[in-house]
Amino acid sequence: MNYGMIIYLLGRVLEIVGVMMACPYAVSLYYHESNGVLFLGCGAAMLVAGALVCALIKPKNKAFYAREGFVMTSLSWLLLSVGGCLPFYLSGEIPSFTDALFECISGFTTTGASVVPAVEDLSHCMNFWRCFIQLIGGMGVLVFMLALIPSTGGQDLYIMKAESPGPSVGKMAPKVRQTAFYLYVIYFTLTTLEIVCLIIAGCPVFDSICTAFTTTSTGGFGVRNTSLTDYNTAVQYVVACFLFFAGFNYNFFFYLWLRKWKDAFRSEEIRLYTGIFWCSVLLITANIVLNNGYDLESGFRNAFFQVGSIITTAGFSSADFDQWHSFSREIMIVLMLIGGCAGSTCGGIKISRILIYLKALKKELSQLCHPRSVKVLTLEGKTIPHAVLRSANIFLITYASLFIFSILLISLEGYDFTTNFTAVASALGNIGPGFSLVGPTRNFAFFSPISKFVLMFDMLAGRLELFPLLVMFSPATWKRN
Amino acid sequence: MNYGMIIYLLGRVLEIVGVMMACPYAVSLYYHESNGVLFLGCGAAMLVAGALVCALIKPKNKAFYAREGFVMTSLSWLLLSVGGCLPFYLSGEIPSFTDALFECISGFTTTGASVVPAVEDLSHCMNFWRCFIQLIGGMGVLVFMLALIPSTGGQDLYIMKAESPGPSVGKMAPKVRQTAFYLYVIYFTLTTLEIVCLIIAGCPVFDSICTAFTTTSTGGFGVRNTSLTDYNTAVQYVVACFLFFAGFNYNFFFYLWLRKWKDAFRSEEIRLYTGIFWCSVLLITANIVLNNGYDLESGFRNAFFQVGSIITTAGFSSADFDQWHSFSREIMIVLMLIGGCAGSTCGGIKISRILIYLKALKKELSQLCHPRSVKVLTLEGKTIPHAVLRSANIFLITYASLFIFSILLISLEGYDFTTNFTAVASALGNIGPGFSLVGPTRNFAFFSPISKFVLMFDMLAGRLELFPLLVMFSPATWKRN
Repeated sequence: MNYGMIIYLLGRVLEIVGVMMACPYAVSLYYHESNGVLFLGCGAAMLVAGALVCALIKPKNKAFYAREGFVMTSLSWLLLSVGGCLPFYLSGEIPSFTDALFECISGFTTTGASVVPAVEDLSHCMNFWRCFIQLIGGMGVLVFMLALIPSTGGQDLYIMKAESPGPSVGKMAPKVRQTAFYLYVIYFTLTTLEIVCLIIAGCPVFDSICTAFTTTSTGGFGVRNTSLTDYNTAVQYVVACFLFFAGFNYNFFFYLWLRKWKDAFRSEEIRLYTGIFWCSVLLITANIVLNNGYDLESGFRNAFFQVGSIITTAGFSSADFDQWHSFSREIMIVLMLIGGCAGSTCGGIKISRILIYLKALKKELSQLCHPRSVKVLTLEGKTIPHAVLRSANIFLITYASLFIFSILLISLEGYDFTTNFTAVASALGNIGPGFSLVGPTRNFAFFSPISKFVLMFDMLAGRLELFPLLVMFSPATWKRN
Repeated sequence: MNYGMIIYLLGRVLEIVGVMMACPYAVSLYYHESNGVLFLGCGAAMLVAGALVCALIKPKNKAFYAREGFVMTSLSWLLLSVGGCLPFYLSGEIPSFTDALFECISGFTTTGASVVPAVEDLSHCMNFWRCFIQLIGGMGVLVFMLALIPSTGGQDLYIMKAESPGPSVGKMAPKVRQTAFYLYVIYFTLTTLEIVCLIIAGCPVFDSICTAFTTTSTGGFGVRNTSLTDYNTAVQYVVACFLFFAGFNYNFFFYLWLRKWKDAFRSEEIRLYTGIFWCSVLLITANIVLNNGYDLESGFRNAFFQVGSIITTAGFSSADFDQWHSFSREIMIVLMLIGGCAGSTCGGIKISRILIYLKALKKELSQLCHPRSVKVLTLEGKTIPHAVLRSANIFLITYASLFIFSILLISLEGYDFTTNFTAVASALGNIGPGFSLVGPTRNFAFFSPISKFVLMFDMLAGRLELFPLLVMFSPATWKRN
């Protein structure tokens, strides 16, 4: 293990997060909030610490492989979670350190599960920071670092693999650094576009900025106690549309950018995503119009909004969907598990894995009856490599195991099955709200610290797609070569 | 597809079930129950119909491959479900045909989910038939046929593969027929032993016979309204012990029979099963003694009994475990999914698959960090063939897909998530009771006919381990070669 290189890169991460704290400080200046000085202090401390580490440790050995990538990614996420939660804790706005850490991990991982009973009581700079860390975490702080800092070793690919969602890394350009750059351009373009649309739709500027940050990152933190329930219809439609697009594989936007229209719309993953999305919207609209007294427009709007919010794992709410008919609720539980496309900022199992599973299942059924036939699995016109198929299978096994293990630990508190199940589904899928006691009008504050740590682990594991965090517990990782 | 051979074998199955109806008829004679004549009538009709079919259709082409095996197995289970439910329906003791079919499929598949509100109101011969069909379905009626009737083609292996639980068929002898014979010898020995033990423990003879039938088959139908709650402590311990052993791979008993003690106890599957079993018993004992006011003895007894009942997917109850602390309830939901060993009469995913998953996961974690290392997966000292690993993975995907699809269909009725989730888990895993509205003191009568058909499909799919039933829906099955 090349510890020198890992520590050096962690120093770089500290520097970047330190610099980023200038943004909430600027917000505090604008709103004349005194506690914004905490961001200045924490940011400066992190910047200095990071610079010191990078100055003192100049690794001569640049060897950087898969396991260094995993360990470095896990450690940097832990480091920035602890660093990022300090302003919440030191300001006293979130008095418990566990809660501050929970809120921060929930932000960075774009989960959006909150322990704050009334977010409107928080100062503007804290609310801004809550939403800003979702923006940072959405596309990945390491991917951001890759786009900025010239590669000092062969680390790029391994870091990208460890931090990016999906069964395999979609390359937009031959160089990883270029791909990271394109990803961030698309990401910021979508965010800016949404801010403009929201302001036009009549949303206050501060709310527009924060909401756009948490939409494109599919985070889900809101700046109002009632999430997006009280905004006007136009705002809800704008957010719903941007949520729909946030679930797309970013390759789609890259093809649009290159004007390769055919390539953009040919994608099997986008088609399956769109199919699942609109089928769910139609079914839920029909279900809640018939059973929950919605009229056609509000039924469609809420169904569209909630499907977008849940399948992309953002987790906003436009209504108390915990009161909806059980058919709609259970469709949403399934969407929680599925998640958006690979190569997006969404959590969950990801559409491309679902595609792989469905194709493998279809092949198996035909092969059971014709054992000698030979069929090759393809995705987006290319053969699925055996390693990707195996890894997708193991992903499902791991997801299920971690799911079960977490539910058992949380059930020690004695809450009902729906609460436990959806709290874990929500944390592992980086969604935010669940059902029953963790429903859209509630929050996660009532859990004991032990359960909160279990959920924090799940959020990180879900964001990093399980393996980077889990290899930390495998003895093989720490063995000498 | 060799239709002639399939129809011929279905005729044989009809004959066997027809003959078996003599047993409940004998019971009705003993108790002077007039409706027993229905068994005589139905049995005779099935025997004659079967004999006619076999006499008229003498297939010249004996070719019999995997797809014939799957189709034949599925059709024979459908046939015997319809045939077996006729006495329930014609006697009027279960007035609705859907309910009678549900009860019969629940019996044959050894699920034990009942739609009868008060089983004590049923006549003795009907109760006996309910328990007897569990005995028939437990080890498999086709396996029984293989043990009895000389092979007329190469069908043995394919039928055995389609009907036996587990990722691969454990061979006790080189010939399939011999293996089927040994399996039934062990099965009947265990059943007889339990009848004797139960009578010694003070259980009435009729109850002993019926309970033993439903223990070794891990079915779970009881002859009392309160399942096994009202029997004495000794009876509960006897049943709990036999349940524990019912979850073992029958290879274990075969090795004991051959006095190969080392081979018997070396099995990784048996070790994992025993480990999960006793860990669960200990955790639940501690949990319900601390939270539900049980004393140590009754806490241990009920935990032992319920863990045995749920992990083997029998589904008896010795207490209303739906009232237990949520930690205990959620352990039991996990046990519902896991099930017993392969090569037993249990349902669920099976311990050997869980072993395969855990080993694959461990290998993946180590391989992620050391991509060039080569490791071979082994089970019971033998390399796991790639086809078995792939099939185990596809099994999990299929199990999850069918699970989700069934929950969505059932949720249309508007019941809570716990009811829907555990009803489907119970049907797919062939368990019987679930939680909430399908808890141990309730039954499945309240579901609409559509939901009942969904659950019936799940029970059959669970018993036949998904694929035989699912290939019926694959166009590839019905294609000409």
